[in-house]
Amino acid sequence: MALHPDRLFPIEASARAIARRLHESVAGLPILSPHGHTDPRWYAEDAPFPDPATLFVKPDHYVTRMLYSQGVRLEELGIPARDGTPVETDGRKIWRLFASHWYLFRGTPSRLWLEDSLERCFGITERLAPGNADRLYDTIAEALGKPEFRPRALFERFNIEAISTTDSAIDELKSHQQILASGWKGRVLPAYRPDVVVDPERVGFHDGVRTLLAMTGQLATWQGYLSAHRERRAFFKSLGATSTDHGHASASTADIGTAAAEALFARVLAGPAVPEDAELFRAQMLTEMARMSLDDGLVMQIHPGSYRNHNAPLFQRFGTDIGADIPVGMDYVRALKPLLDAVGNEPGMTVILFTLDETVFSRELAPLAGHYPALKLGPPWWFLDSPEGMRRARELAVETAGFYNTVGFNDDTRAYLSIPARHDTARRVDCSYLARLVADHRLDEDEAYEVAADLAYNLAKKAYKL
Amino acid sequence: MALHPDRLFPIEASARAIARRLHESVAGLPILSPHGHTDPRWYAEDAPFPDPATLFVKPDHYVTRMLYSQGVRLEELGIPARDGTPVETDGRKIWRLFASHWYLFRGTPSRLWLEDSLERCFGITERLAPGNADRLYDTIAEALGKPEFRPRALFERFNIEAISTTDSAIDELKSHQQILASGWKGRVLPAYRPDVVVDPERVGFHDGVRTLLAMTGQLATWQGYLSAHRERRAFFKSLGATSTDHGHASASTADIGTAAAEALFARVLAGPAVPEDAELFRAQMLTEMARMSLDDGLVMQIHPGSYRNHNAPLFQRFGTDIGADIPVGMDYVRALKPLLDAVGNEPGMTVILFTLDETVFSRELAPLAGHYPALKLGPPWWFLDSPEGMRRARELAVETAGFYNTVGFNDDTRAYLSIPARHDTARRVDCSYLARLVADHRLDEDEAYEVAADLAYNLAKKAYKL
Amino acid sequence: MALHPDRLFPIEASARAIARRLHESVAGLPILSPHGHTDPRWYAEDAPFPDPATLFVKPDHYVTRMLYSQGVRLEELGIPARDGTPVETDGRKIWRLFASHWYLFRGTPSRLWLEDSLERCFGITERLAPGNADRLYDTIAEALGKPEFRPRALFERFNIEAISTTDSAIDELKSHQQILASGWKGRVLPAYRPDVVVDPERVGFHDGVRTLLAMTGQLATWQGYLSAHRERRAFFKSLGATSTDHGHASASTADIGTAAAEALFARVLAGPAVPEDAELFRAQMLTEMARMSLDDGLVMQIHPGSYRNHNAPLFQRFGTDIGADIPVGMDYVRALKPLLDAVGNEPGMTVILFTLDETVFSRELAPLAGHYPALKLGPPWWFLDSPEGMRRARELAVETAGFYNTVGFNDDTRAYLSIPARHDTARRVDCSYLARLVADHRLDEDEAYEVAADLAYNLAKKAYKL
Repeated sequence: MALHPDRLFPIEASARAIARRLHESVAGLPILSPHGHTDPRWYAEDAPFPDPATLFVKPDHYVTRMLYSQGVRLEELGIPARDGTPVETDGRKIWRLFASHWYLFRGTPSRLWLEDSLERCFGITERLAPGNADRLYDTIAEALGKPEFRPRALFERFNIEAISTTDSAIDELKSHQQILASGWKGRVLPAYRPDVVVDPERVGFHDGVRTLLAMTGQLATWQGYLSAHRERRAFFKSLGATSTDHGHASASTADIGTAAAEALFARVLAGPAVPEDAELFRAQMLTEMARMSLDDGLVMQIHPGSYRNHNAPLFQRFGTDIGADIPVGMDYVRALKPLLDAVGNEPGMTVILFTLDETVFSRELAPLAGHYPALKLGPPWWFLDSPEGMRRARELAVETAGFYNTVGFNDDTRAYLSIPARHDTARRVDCSYLARLVADHRLDEDEAYEVAADLAYNLAKKAYKL
Repeated sequence: MALHPDRLFPIEASARAIARRLHESVAGLPILSPHGHTDPRWYAEDAPFPDPATLFVKPDHYVTRMLYSQGVRLEELGIPARDGTPVETDGRKIWRLFASHWYLFRGTPSRLWLEDSLERCFGITERLAPGNADRLYDTIAEALGKPEFRPRALFERFNIEAISTTDSAIDELKSHQQILASGWKGRVLPAYRPDVVVDPERVGFHDGVRTLLAMTGQLATWQGYLSAHRERRAFFKSLGATSTDHGHASASTADIGTAAAEALFARVLAGPAVPEDAELFRAQMLTEMARMSLDDGLVMQIHPGSYRNHNAPLFQRFGTDIGADIPVGMDYVRALKPLLDAVGNEPGMTVILFTLDETVFSRELAPLAGHYPALKLGPPWWFLDSPEGMRRARELAVETAGFYNTVGFNDDTRAYLSIPARHDTARRVDCSYLARLVADHRLDEDEAYEVAADLAYNLAKKAYKL
Repeated sequence: MALHPDRLFPIEASARAIARRLHESVAGLPILSPHGHTDPRWYAEDAPFPDPATLFVKPDHYVTRMLYSQGVRLEELGIPARDGTPVETDGRKIWRLFASHWYLFRGTPSRLWLEDSLERCFGITERLAPGNADRLYDTIAEALGKPEFRPRALFERFNIEAISTTDSAIDELKSHQQILASGWKGRVLPAYRPDVVVDPERVGFHDGVRTLLAMTGQLATWQGYLSAHRERRAFFKSLGATSTDHGHASASTADIGTAAAEALFARVLAGPAVPEDAELFRAQMLTEMARMSLDDGLVMQIHPGSYRNHNAPLFQRFGTDIGADIPVGMDYVRALKPLLDAVGNEPGMTVILFTLDETVFSRELAPLAGHYPALKLGPPWWFLDSPEGMRRARELAVETAGFYNTVGFNDDTRAYLSIPARHDTARRVDCSYLARLVADHRLDEDEAYEVAADLAYNLAKKAYKL
């Protein structure tokens, strides 16, 4: 194994040649990572990454869910249960377990990302296998100790122009302040993610709201609560934030008027919210956040439609984010109408929509984004962030929404070393899509170069105001 | 730019060669346009078309919605708001605005249709751009003044064998009468579209029903109302109509019996209908229309599933048909059952189903059309009338419904000059699909020629009784 | 016509060459048919098959539905109505009718299966047509009289290693006992299908439950009823069964506790169940069956989501299974949660999920199967068991679930002679999918050989414990 220069390109020779030319023109563009989940402390502290298992296996829910689905217990992967079941702490053993199950990832994007990361970062060109697991572990572990593998050095080596983290509304953003104070030139921006103080069904909602109000000195009223959000958004913005992000169970929005909202806020604050109130409160808050975006210019991202913590027994033992979040079918058309009636026609507004239900690309999202000035389509998300998923998303959306109602790529990852691989995958898939349009004469090649650069760089820069 | 003879064909050389041969065999077939929205006055009056902007930009909702989505105001495109906001009236300025945004249409069917129209009709082989906008405007404007660019001349040049318009049930069909009286041989047929007198939630419903009853001298009873429909259908038929068309919010049908229907009619006629009554009335009327079709032989078309006028503020200012109709998810299986129980097994009956939700092609529509003698699948509609949309529709439906439960192509357009481009696009995509079946040995080439001609011409002729 | 050795392979030459190599490596593997509907009496009695029409036309609902959709009456195909309408009994006439409509099957898998069967079994290399219908009828009829065309001889010729039938929970499995007693080495296994005693809305439910209890000497209580199931499952297992199968209207599962289940059982047993009770009982029984599988090791298959007997008038005249079962949209995520909370984390458990709604592959089933140890994805089912359907299923599911959370192919057929054709079609489509991954460098060719063999043979063997 070694990364083939033509990987992911069309198979037919003439289209492949076009894709190769297009890719060559964008492969060197800087990375804009306007939405993701890397840890700001990495950039603030610039400490070495720990062992290979902690880097590549334990925190990657794509990896752990696949292993778990095939009978590997989470404890064997170093993920601690709340009940005190013994957990594997030897990175090397976890890595060996990973290597012995590597065949499971055939045909998955995890395979592509890992192999690209291993070769790009560590010069490893062998296929991971039980026979070489120890040797590769040593190679990686040794490299991680070197200065050029520290977060900031990698940032520069990866040619990252700007990266956004995702941060709780009540986070003090100490790491971001530390980065700014350090004089390091790497651009690491926070993003305002208020779910914990917006979703009454989240564990920690009431504490979160209390903290939010305390941080801002606001009263526990609807107006005080909204002011607190405005204040925190301004604080995030002062540290470079250009966007907010909202991970809701559905895409429901509402616009129920001040009096009803005041009463609703009082109810959800008073105690455990009934499900209808919780849904309505989240829905109302999306519209409120949109109105605030209209004022403060923060770009709004909505990531809806994941049934979180679907596996109840596992959630009890291990908590959240263990691979048991499952997409559900969506209806954006009715759900978004209240928000769109409020701000959809504002040309200065940007709401970026994501979906885990790809059936809505052609049916709902492309028609919506191809009409409303405020709407843009986010890139294929999570399970759809894959070569086939990205290809389908283009095929489903471009004919109705065009390229210019989309916003380029998000890597959306906490797997730092995979960032170049993910962006390169997206660039390859997009260049392949464009190459097919050129090869069957739907697009001229000179235009394809422009679009390729827009998809790889310019659209993200513009949409996210980077 | 110049239209490439191999556009839209498979990229691989052997499949492309097959597609080319197939397309060559159907490219010259006459156009049957059994469903569309051209204005019958064009053929009746045979007046010159106005300026290029009025021809290509203002009335094309595919075009105006894309420009609007990118911040162009509708007034700038010459679309008047009800509030008297000044509106652009200079066609040249609108055309320049269009030209400066032409890049937005990369990858969209609008791009293909316009470029084909410009080259086919006006010999224009340059890509539209700010730099040539004025010159191309002049070229088109000059041509439009010539006799060979009048509607009837174009009809003949386009090799249209028959075209159907879509006409309100209470339209007097004066233009159709005028065409017939004129001695011109062009075949322009009306189609019976009763939405305004069938949908209690349409603006104008009550006036419409009053007019319908007055035109036919019927009483305001359920039986009188049904008789009025029968009479109007007979009138449409006498002027050449072979079909009816029904644009409903959902595909719901009902068959509630005479007594319940009488009471329902009385309720919807008495005043503003409650939503449940409105839905039930539309549902019942689909079944009634189906029964009338069984009697009078008019082919029934159902175009359901568009959320009309989704953008409330824009609807208030500009009215309907401004690009804010958005598809919603569909369930045809339960919705159509009452109608199918009533007429689904009639081999003499034809109900043509359309969808904006392509997920139903493989799940619902192909299984339904591959079973019920009365059902046929319409071609990909609206946002799905595109190269990728058409390809997917074939891939999703043919394996279950075959080719012979489909009805060929509809251009469904009010953009007269795009009609040859649209039919040619469909023929190219179908020939490409067939070429792939031949190239991987699922179909013999001699059969592919037959199917290509059936899809391009024979199926529409038979299904629509042309 | 003659079967092309490259049929269904990628069109592009280099990918085709890879697919050819991969296919060559698996084409000779034995057939495992772990789910299907062949009649165990065939193997028990080893009598000659009757005439070609009875073999290829009358019992094949793919065929009869297509002919019916185009106006052929079921009686003309030899399918008797309950009302005594005269029915065609001359196989030759039915075969001629079939031949004259053979063009309808262009582009369908029925075309591929029949042509493969005709050439593979009878050496027929002509395309069926009115002109050769009689001659081909005679060729087939003559062959069917020979010993080598008897069921057991074909079983061996087809290289079937094991085949599972699908059998009612209250079937005495006489044929299976007869096969075992006969000394014949062909492995024919029963599968436990309890729908008739689990679904209160099935005709025969109450009689079925009575029979079930009588066969096992159990009382008409919830506990007695469950014990009866356990006993019957053990009996099936003693005759070789390794699986159960459940054909429910939805994928709903429930886990309502013993007291509520006892009361529910009493209600559904007392008389016609209200729809809510019927749905809840089916839902609860899926979870009970899953628990029993955990105990006795039978693999559980769920085939949900078909709207059975959609065509009411035809159901009245002809009964079930006449081509009028239509898929509906599905939500597996919420529906399966109770069952998954109960057994989803059991690594020793196998629940194989099927779908007729392909939108759930990427949205729900791949994410679920890529997480829960107990879940596996079944192959594309029924209308999706087709070249395009299988390709899409791989493209939609593999990136998230991988190959190893799937279970290989099921032919799911009662058309015995088509079994080799169906398995070969699946192997060709899978090898083509793998070839594309190799050709664009997502997978190494040595791995593709392994995966090809796993998909063709090993995964079915393991998942179904064969």
